[in-house]
Amino acid sequence: MTHKVQVTYLPVGEAREPVMTRVPEGTTLFHAAHWAGLPIDSTCGGRGTCGKCGVRVAVGHAARTLADYRHLSERLDEGWRLSCQAVVAEEMTVEVPRLLHPPRAATMGVGRFVLLEPNVQKLMLELPAPSVDDHRSRLQHVRDALVEEGLEVTHDADLLPRLAEVLSEDAPTVTATVVGDRLVDVEPGDTRERMFGVSFDLGTTTVVATLVDLRAGAVSAVTSTINHQAPYGADVIARMGHAMGGPDEREQLRSAVVETLNGLLDDVCASASVAREDIYEAVLVGNATMLHLLLGVDPTSIALSPFVATFVDPQDLRASTAGLAIHPRGRLTLLPSFGAYVGADIVADVLATGVARDPERRLLVDVGTNGEIVCGSEARSVATAAPAGPAFEGGQVRCGMRATAGAIEGVDLEHGDVRLEVIGDVAPVGMCGSGLIDAVAQLRAVDLVDETGALLSRDDAAGHPLAERIVELEGGLKAFELAPGVVLTQLDIRELQSAKGAIATGIEVAMDTLGWTAVDLDEVLLAGSFGSYINPQSARLLGLVPPVPVERIKAVGNTASEGAKMALMSFREREVAFELPSFVEYLELSAQEDFNDRFIRNLRFPALEMVAS
Amino acid sequence: MTHKVQVTYLPVGEAREPVMTRVPEGTTLFHAAHWAGLPIDSTCGGRGTCGKCGVRVAVGHAARTLADYRHLSERLDEGWRLSCQAVVAEEMTVEVPRLLHPPRAATMGVGRFVLLEPNVQKLMLELPAPSVDDHRSRLQHVRDALVEEGLEVTHDADLLPRLAEVLSEDAPTVTATVVGDRLVDVEPGDTRERMFGVSFDLGTTTVVATLVDLRAGAVSAVTSTINHQAPYGADVIARMGHAMGGPDEREQLRSAVVETLNGLLDDVCASASVAREDIYEAVLVGNATMLHLLLGVDPTSIALSPFVATFVDPQDLRASTAGLAIHPRGRLTLLPSFGAYVGADIVADVLATGVARDPERRLLVDVGTNGEIVCGSEARSVATAAPAGPAFEGGQVRCGMRATAGAIEGVDLEHGDVRLEVIGDVAPVGMCGSGLIDAVAQLRAVDLVDETGALLSRDDAAGHPLAERIVELEGGLKAFELAPGVVLTQLDIRELQSAKGAIATGIEVAMDTLGWTAVDLDEVLLAGSFGSYINPQSARLLGLVPPVPVERIKAVGNTASEGAKMALMSFREREVAFELPSFVEYLELSAQEDFNDRFIRNLRFPALEMVAS
Repeated sequence: MTHKVQVTYLPVGEAREPVMTRVPEGTTLFHAAHWAGLPIDSTCGGRGTCGKCGVRVAVGHAARTLADYRHLSERLDEGWRLSCQAVVAEEMTVEVPRLLHPPRAATMGVGRFVLLEPNVQKLMLELPAPSVDDHRSRLQHVRDALVEEGLEVTHDADLLPRLAEVLSEDAPTVTATVVGDRLVDVEPGDTRERMFGVSFDLGTTTVVATLVDLRAGAVSAVTSTINHQAPYGADVIARMGHAMGGPDEREQLRSAVVETLNGLLDDVCASASVAREDIYEAVLVGNATMLHLLLGVDPTSIALSPFVATFVDPQDLRASTAGLAIHPRGRLTLLPSFGAYVGADIVADVLATGVARDPERRLLVDVGTNGEIVCGSEARSVATAAPAGPAFEGGQVRCGMRATAGAIEGVDLEHGDVRLEVIGDVAPVGMCGSGLIDAVAQLRAVDLVDETGALLSRDDAAGHPLAERIVELEGGLKAFELAPGVVLTQLDIRELQSAKGAIATGIEVAMDTLGWTAVDLDEVLLAGSFGSYINPQSARLLGLVPPVPVERIKAVGNTASEGAKMALMSFREREVAFELPSFVEYLELSAQEDFNDRFIRNLRFPALEMVAS
Repeated sequence: MTHKVQVTYLPVGEAREPVMTRVPEGTTLFHAAHWAGLPIDSTCGGRGTCGKCGVRVAVGHAARTLADYRHLSERLDEGWRLSCQAVVAEEMTVEVPRLLHPPRAATMGVGRFVLLEPNVQKLMLELPAPSVDDHRSRLQHVRDALVEEGLEVTHDADLLPRLAEVLSEDAPTVTATVVGDRLVDVEPGDTRERMFGVSFDLGTTTVVATLVDLRAGAVSAVTSTINHQAPYGADVIARMGHAMGGPDEREQLRSAVVETLNGLLDDVCASASVAREDIYEAVLVGNATMLHLLLGVDPTSIALSPFVATFVDPQDLRASTAGLAIHPRGRLTLLPSFGAYVGADIVADVLATGVARDPERRLLVDVGTNGEIVCGSEARSVATAAPAGPAFEGGQVRCGMRATAGAIEGVDLEHGDVRLEVIGDVAPVGMCGSGLIDAVAQLRAVDLVDETGALLSRDDAAGHPLAERIVELEGGLKAFELAPGVVLTQLDIRELQSAKGAIATGIEVAMDTLGWTAVDLDEVLLAGSFGSYINPQSARLLGLVPPVPVERIKAVGNTASEGAKMALMSFREREVAFELPSFVEYLELSAQEDFNDRFIRNLRFPALEMVAS
């Protein structure tokens, strides 16, 4: 791991306490301040061109850079530096002036205070009239006007025909749209009120699109749909299997996901009456396999040992390269992944929850075919993934089903009878993941399932008020009848046991790496759409999560979507997302020598309890 | 103009004199050394990543940059800096160590000594086997291996599918191809011997392609063809006129030129047995209008006052964006232009001849529909363009024709008879530009044309051995019969007069700006394919060039093509080309208040003589 260094920020002219943070060597003072939640002024987004992010280095040494000479020449001797150019190499104390123009902010994710400064900017420029005395090209006119605004831009070659067209109208007022440091459009007149972005949470099952009015800092429309890759496999393992069929199969998967995203774009644009051309940027998260498939990259190396992704770092590309139909020169950013099995969706979870950035010691679990686990605090954090298999999504379970009408999603056996929560106003026809967890947890609570996961026979349960519900199926398979035609079999319990054993092992390894036991945990966060439905009490009962007081277990909902939206609406949050993989250690669970021993121990309900001993 | 600062380089460990140069403030020590013809070691091309370009700053101040800390930390106090990061802000003296690995070099252009270090590099890498203990992505493996070689690279998103494909073969040896700082391909095994580039000289009339083996540093094939835009107009003015017809017309012009370039690619690839996929980079020069049309940019603003280009700075794009069929992720670089009418072809002329870079005081003239003029030395240089019109290309001339079979290209009247040089072994059918110049110059030499351009009548010429050749055509139009059916009319002489007047005025303005007269000129260079055919004596006689001793007038041939090739074969030369526009002042001739007075005076044969008075 990179060596970490402490930086202390002293806010000047504000009634704020000093802010301390520890960042990897080589981080800039500007980004380290993001990390610590302290905003430093900037209009260029930390590119050294606007000259607004000056801080005074009181203790420690920061080299004088060219940008410093350009913007702060008279104050260099006093220790002033552009924080975006100053790199942390040793312990430092830095004075930070108050924000000159405090940007708008909003509370997003799980109580995160987010400054609304998107990576897209629209600037109204008054261009000089072309003249024989002025030898600059028209492009240079635009670039020089942007430099006045503190932005040094690049461009793609196909901006040039557009530029010639727009500037031929001889109207001096134009609006330049800059995404990051790239000039993507110039329009006649003042179009600043039309500036949109879109974030995508590209799940294996469900894909969510959020259209954001970047000018207003508000969501314009949200919609979701089934990933059109579904016909090629129910879960991520199946999709990888299909992709391994060859280039044609990968192209099927790629075009299916592009079609899904463009369909969502149609929907959000229609519902908010926004033109696609006014969407300048997309931010996308998803697991590493989804990101590979979106870019047409063979995910075989993720599927097979040693489980290595082709790419995990953030990707910045033209949206059109990926087939995304936003502005023709609009950009697409994929957030980074922690590793092959802890993807950009989990980076977004972490962004939206503040795990790894706050002093609180937290465990975040995203339960699914893979259970992704992030555990830590600002001091140190680790991430890992546990191969849970399909049980939580209703796979390999006799009466398993997705969380749709007729699914049992909650079970209560503690009153001597069977009380069920069923989705929709219909008779139960099966159970979804949360129902499965509840059912097993309740059977365990009423002692019809023992610590080894064995369901008592009707004989052994004699006298128990629910003994009559225990039935014997073909081949002597024991089962518990939840409702007419809906049974939970011994095999189903074994499936759940295996899934929970994998996740509990991941949690255990992560916590052991940090030297933590359950008492060290301030919070356990259950993330992902499935996580929101798990009964915290049941999760604790089964040892799916460590034995913390149940009020510390929180379902935080779809934080991946929320994190993607944050990265879209705030360049500072995006930078934090980009840096998260270097702050959070990735553990490959299959590389743990004692994995099998741990797994077998954690099959017990609830072995994870032992962490707290 | 940018303020210029003197830098003195002291070569250490070499028997070389100190090298002095004056460069605009803000130039790096590395590039200033290129400029002065002194190579400093580098494998990353001046991007601050290889750490090889260290120099010791003996006099003057250079800020310590992050790259300095990374590569030279222990020698900073002694004044060592990476020259590619150190910016010239004041007079400096710098010690330069001897090149560790002197690259191959060749003499190119007009006696230029060029180091053969292309912008394309192929590196053989040994990648680590993927392992569960190594959390890096496959992309990171490649990037880390390149960092070991001193290269920090970016990539386009569509490299990723290729990467997954190549690295799935589990062979540890791959060859990475880097163009500039962009990783464009990874191939299995060692493919270093296949590394090609192509340079294009995109003329309005003729297009030349040069295929270069970048590994060997040698030309593999050269071919040329007529620009397929020809049906849309004979000269650049006509092409602009066609382009102003609308988007369809611009698309006709764009696709015609792309087709021309791809046709040439086919030819050079076939003749050298090279695959298009092994061509990783193209460098292209041409006048600004040709560059605009290639990128689909409306050239109207160039055509109409105040004559402003949409772009003049260098463009770096994917070759595929411009429709160029080289390696799918290959790059295309357009050299910069000095201004709307002094294009990248003239930048290439300057690169290939050393004008503006050498101490010699030189005038370079590229004669055509526009006469482009560059005049100066390392101390100061200016560029301008003169609207000569079509006369030099045979347009508006009764018996004018292109330089093909049957064209009179040389005339000698000094022996009392008419001696002609005709292209091809055929009877003369017309005259090309050089023939026109020769004919008028010879008539002037034998006093049949006076200083005002008036052709004597047969009566006034009575007694002259050539008087019989003077004829009278329709409407009393006087003419001189060069050959049966081939006449030079008084109107033709007026056309030439007007063309020469424009160019002479441009030369005069350029030289006046520098405070030079003819005696200050060390050399006059006639560039361009047409320039090579002009009789220097005739050019001087007519006042098309200043009155210097005729041996100082040199036809230098197609230096545009040569300059493009130099920029392809040497990243250092390319950087010089990129910087030339900030060294050379662009004069817009039509903005000169006394243009008309000067033009009228320069209609005389030979008013330019007066410069020397």
